[in-house]
Amino acid sequence: MKRLYVGVDLGGTNVASALIDEDGNVLARDKRPTLADQPEGVTVRQIIDGITEAARKGGVSVGDLAAIGIGAPGPLDPFEGVVLAPVNLPNWGKVPLKRIVDTKMGVPVVVDNDANVVAVGEQWKGAGREVNDFLCVTLGTGIGGGAICGGKLLHGFNGNAAEIGHITIDYNGPRCNCGNYGCLELYASANAMVRRALERIKKESPKTILPRSGKLTSQMIFEAAKNGDRFAIEMFEETGFFLGVGLVSAINLLNVEMVAITGGLANAGDLIFGPVRRTVLERGFPEVKEKVRIIPTQLGEDAALIGAARLAMEGGVRS
Amino acid sequence: MKRLYVGVDLGGTNVASALIDEDGNVLARDKRPTLADQPEGVTVRQIIDGITEAARKGGVSVGDLAAIGIGAPGPLDPFEGVVLAPVNLPNWGKVPLKRIVDTKMGVPVVVDNDANVVAVGEQWKGAGREVNDFLCVTLGTGIGGGAICGGKLLHGFNGNAAEIGHITIDYNGPRCNCGNYGCLELYASANAMVRRALERIKKESPKTILPRSGKLTSQMIFEAAKNGDRFAIEMFEETGFFLGVGLVSAINLLNVEMVAITGGLANAGDLIFGPVRRTVLERGFPEVKEKVRIIPTQLGEDAALIGAARLAMEGGVRS
Repeated sequence: MKRLYVGVDLGGTNVASALIDEDGNVLARDKRPTLADQPEGVTVRQIIDGITEAARKGGVSVGDLAAIGIGAPGPLDPFEGVVLAPVNLPNWGKVPLKRIVDTKMGVPVVVDNDANVVAVGEQWKGAGREVNDFLCVTLGTGIGGGAICGGKLLHGFNGNAAEIGHITIDYNGPRCNCGNYGCLELYASANAMVRRALERIKKESPKTILPRSGKLTSQMIFEAAKNGDRFAIEMFEETGFFLGVGLVSAINLLNVEMVAITGGLANAGDLIFGPVRRTVLERGFPEVKEKVRIIPTQLGEDAALIGAARLAMEGGVRS
Repeated sequence: MKRLYVGVDLGGTNVASALIDEDGNVLARDKRPTLADQPEGVTVRQIIDGITEAARKGGVSVGDLAAIGIGAPGPLDPFEGVVLAPVNLPNWGKVPLKRIVDTKMGVPVVVDNDANVVAVGEQWKGAGREVNDFLCVTLGTGIGGGAICGGKLLHGFNGNAAEIGHITIDYNGPRCNCGNYGCLELYASANAMVRRALERIKKESPKTILPRSGKLTSQMIFEAAKNGDRFAIEMFEETGFFLGVGLVSAINLLNVEMVAITGGLANAGDLIFGPVRRTVLERGFPEVKEKVRIIPTQLGEDAALIGAARLAMEGGVRS
């Protein structure tokens, strides 16, 4: 009989859970819209119900689980399993999620950052299967990261490692919400691309099929670029260049063999991967840059579920 | 009877060796000027002679050694122990140092990057004794680094990790020898400070006791700053600011609890540590920046010897 785990992906939109065996096979799933406008106790109840339901659908009970892993929005303390008032769960204060779920369910629980569980999942069963030094980047409204170094998830001393969105690419750049200046996130996130496009449209009135007023999204820029719109393509070129600059710094520090990219902008394929790869080849270390593969992630939304289960299997982090 | 090791610090100026016991005590030393203008075989012979002599002075023979560790100038391959044509040893091509010394002496040999062995030494017996997540920065003509993550030396996939001198702090900055642009080394190394001072003296004729022509060194700027020269103090302020910018990026990626700094500029004490610490406090992550200690290294030149012995003790790196 294989050991069984439940991996949970707690997000601002959905609470997803999956029953997963020790080989990484997903046996059953549960997904429910996050009641993010309710008190934190309600969302915690949803997590417990989701875990119970995923187990039930797989024909087992919670008592049959070897462990439970939860990926949650940061900031959090992965050593103690405490979620620390995440932006995506506005009604949450400091929530000792590990202790609460562990006490309720009587099963060992691990809690880690959502970007970290995605990296662990992709390294176990996805893009990073064959490498021990691996960076996983989530390119959304912000930029998140998870790093595997020498086969192990990099936590750092208080669980704030791999914050690739907050490395400086221009020390004279604008201030970021994090307190730093010129952060990569201000140049290469979906939000940053939209902001830059709006500014250029307003200032330079470029030839483009994009709307000159009203709401603009990265998806609209993507559609325009696919249709050959030069201005939209240029927006992706710039975004990929900036991301490449940030990745070179990360590669020079972490010496990872692979960078896998996920999130909205990663769906744009070569429009974004092209300029990223060219920038890394132009700026990276000789002996390193030719060997680093930069590719899309492979597991989609399952990465977080599978990674959370894997962390549960490994018994979590030193505390 | 304690196990015995020899640690070697191979530099462009000296070949230093020390007999070191398993507790990190230095029992005997040898030091000889590197014959860097001779063929590589001559320098390799010096290494073997130095190891033999350090053992002899400690009253043992090479056969009594448990292992030998060598810190050598990069680039090198720590997995195979191959030195790859370092700038500091201009007559060296690709030298399989581990295999050569191992074969000659019949003792297991580990070879690693000089910045890495310093980090290992400082973490074992120096500044980083109490932390598991530690960055050691060498601030000289260039900027080198070694990182300990979760208690283990960070190598990355091909031994090029922790190159903090080559993270970009200005994507529009000048080109670096490494191929990247706007590298930290171009702003915060001793060479960079001297270059910036020369430019300012030429352009702005500032009030300063520094010479307006002839050779300028970082030591001269240090002496002037100690004597209260405003311009010289400003040069250290700028250099510390740039280093702080780079450290914030490194801390946001590695989440280290301590940064220890060594090398010529680190001797300037508060002149450099002051602006570095202020910049990290201004720009770092909340919950992180207040907790990161930025201090000088503690072991001086012994760090490399002790670190090399420690790596030998640990049996080197996965290959």
